[in-house]
Amino acid sequence: ADVKKIAVIAGDGIGPEVVAEAEKVLKRTEELFGYQFETEHALFGGIAIDEKGTPLPEETLKVCQGSDAVLLGAVGGPKWDNNSKELRPETGLLGIRKALGLFSNIRPAVIFDCLKEASTLKPEVLEGTDLIVVRELTGGIYFGEKFRRETENGQQAVDTCTYTVAEVERIARQAFDIARTRRKKLASVDKANVLETSRLWRETVNRIAVDYPDVELEHVLVDNCAMQLLRRPSSFDVIVTENMFGDILSDEAAMLTGSIGMLSSASLGEGSFGLYEPVHGSAPDIAGQGIANPIATILSVALMFRLTFGYHDAADSIERAVKEVLDAGHRTGDIAVDKSKAIGTIAMGQLIVDAM
Amino acid sequence: ADVKKIAVIAGDGIGPEVVAEAEKVLKRTEELFGYQFETEHALFGGIAIDEKGTPLPEETLKVCQGSDAVLLGAVGGPKWDNNSKELRPETGLLGIRKALGLFSNIRPAVIFDCLKEASTLKPEVLEGTDLIVVRELTGGIYFGEKFRRETENGQQAVDTCTYTVAEVERIARQAFDIARTRRKKLASVDKANVLETSRLWRETVNRIAVDYPDVELEHVLVDNCAMQLLRRPSSFDVIVTENMFGDILSDEAAMLTGSIGMLSSASLGEGSFGLYEPVHGSAPDIAGQGIANPIATILSVALMFRLTFGYHDAADSIERAVKEVLDAGHRTGDIAVDKSKAIGTIAMGQLIVDAM
Ligand SMILES: CC(C)[C@H](C(=O)O)[C@@H](O)C(=O)O
Ligand SMILES: CC(C)[C@H](C(=O)O)[C@@H](O)C(=O)O
Repeated sequence: ADVKKIAVIAGDGIGPEVVAEAEKVLKRTEELFGYQFETEHALFGGIAIDEKGTPLPEETLKVCQGSDAVLLGAVGGPKWDNNSKELRPETGLLGIRKALGLFSNIRPAVIFDCLKEASTLKPEVLEGTDLIVVRELTGGIYFGEKFRRETENGQQAVDTCTYTVAEVERIARQAFDIARTRRKKLASVDKANVLETSRLWRETVNRIAVDYPDVELEHVLVDNCAMQLLRRPSSFDVIVTENMFGDILSDEAAMLTGSIGMLSSASLGEGSFGLYEPVHGSAPDIAGQGIANPIATILSVALMFRLTFGYHDAADSIERAVKEVLDAGHRTGDIAVDKSKAIGTIAMGQLIVDAM
Repeated sequence: ADVKKIAVIAGDGIGPEVVAEAEKVLKRTEELFGYQFETEHALFGGIAIDEKGTPLPEETLKVCQGSDAVLLGAVGGPKWDNNSKELRPETGLLGIRKALGLFSNIRPAVIFDCLKEASTLKPEVLEGTDLIVVRELTGGIYFGEKFRRETENGQQAVDTCTYTVAEVERIARQAFDIARTRRKKLASVDKANVLETSRLWRETVNRIAVDYPDVELEHVLVDNCAMQLLRRPSSFDVIVTENMFGDILSDEAAMLTGSIGMLSSASLGEGSFGLYEPVHGSAPDIAGQGIANPIATILSVALMFRLTFGYHDAADSIERAVKEVLDAGHRTGDIAVDKSKAIGTIAMGQLIVDAM
């Protein structure tokens, strides 16, 4: 039988709680659809710093490399915020992206009809919003040389932002491919009026565009994009951009949906391997209380089924179940209008498993 | 008599139309308050490329350097978008900032009560929003070394982001000083979990903070700030950040007010010299039709009066006049709900001059 290996990284804060519910969904999928999963747990982030002295232990990397996909909860928390660079959860995050070659971060920003009122945007502006931010994840200023030096004007810090043509090509192709499966519109975001990396980005995207005559391409400056996301979110289909801009714009896009507790993301490399995680963070303030919303993590499993395994039937089942449970009015605290009626993490997970 | 010299740069697109109305306000101020202005016009941006072969002619720089303040309309347009770097309006903009030492860009994002409905945010979320973005304007990735090179992985583009302690200190002090005159809250935005320049930024801001114990300081990561601006805009007072982040966040903040045609900005250096301009661009699509909104440019004059000349009485008069005209229901096309009742640029300018 075709057993899929999944590395499960619970991480910090609410990570373990939401991941536990996602694992129940995996089990239920085996029962309902006959697929087989082998999960292996691994330490990562703050807990790995505490237990192993490094945010990304060798064993964890090996477990991931020996798997078909990774399911990640969340990492980080105030406990490690003042650590030196090598002992910070974020360093593990950057390290795992690079080590696994995850050059592309896919973040769908969709509106859940029943949660529309949770957004700070007017409902009529949000209407029809369904976009994906494709963020380059292993290049740019995140990974360029960084250092301090003494200059005649005193101490100076330096970060270097670099992109090669090949790095832009692969992310551009992926974004065009995704746009092709959707409304066939791609917005490429850069700052070509100022940055050399953006000029190379734009040239390269234009060159790749020749292979995708069916996809409508527009170039949007990053400052303008930050505005247009607010003004006309529903007009975007796929947005592709470099690492730093993608960090900012994908969070802006996620927030405007009003459904940040519901959004999943995928980080992909060459081939079908991928790392899947909720967009929300480790929320240390509510960790351990059994009240976190597990939906984003559960939907990350659905995304894994679609993008890595091609199990569209099981993905449909999960997504339908989530919709059903929400339509029936069940809410965790973060998305409840009437907080007194909110249900907990485990109850929400169970309802979704039962509805599959 | 103390005659103030103002360099007037009309620029491109709607620039000349809106600047003409602002000049009427200058004239009216002389009549009403007895101040004296001497204006000198200079070519800049696209029109300077066309007429002088460079976006920032030597004479223009001289006129600015010989003035107490600069009033700028707007520059740029599709006509020059495909020019080589040295022949683009943006290059002039970066050049003038550097040449005049304008290291600080001040962008108030305020809500005009009568225009609240123009925002895509819910009115209850916007309620009480009154923030200023202080953007570092002559450092960072905008001005670092940029080049292409051949690597073993093919062609690579490189941008360099640098900040010295001194560069961060002066902008931090300015932001703290501004916060002191307001609600005494400063949000310093960086990406200290990834960038070395951000770590130097944060250390330096923390060091300067010791001199401002009365100002409440918080550090916000740039991706989080992009979210929080949407979620709780009214909780911000002064935001200070580096050049690239400031470009993105100030545009996001401007857009969420719903009043982008109304917002003014100041670019300041050491001393009282400043360059004042509307936040909106050159809007080539409506240029020459007499329908552009002159209010942002007129309010830029008020800002000049406050920050460079200390003419608070005249600034008050302008701001009150604008409010009165808006409260009376007068609108240009960009802010009119009923477009058929919209008035033109000259009519709006005249109403404001009359109301002063
Ligand atoms: C924690 C941080 C390094 C990370 C990033 O900036 O990539 C996070 O913000 C994200 O978007 O996954
Ligand atoms: C035109 C461009 C170079 C400029 C910038 O990025 O600084 C503009 O966006 C601005 O904010 O004034």
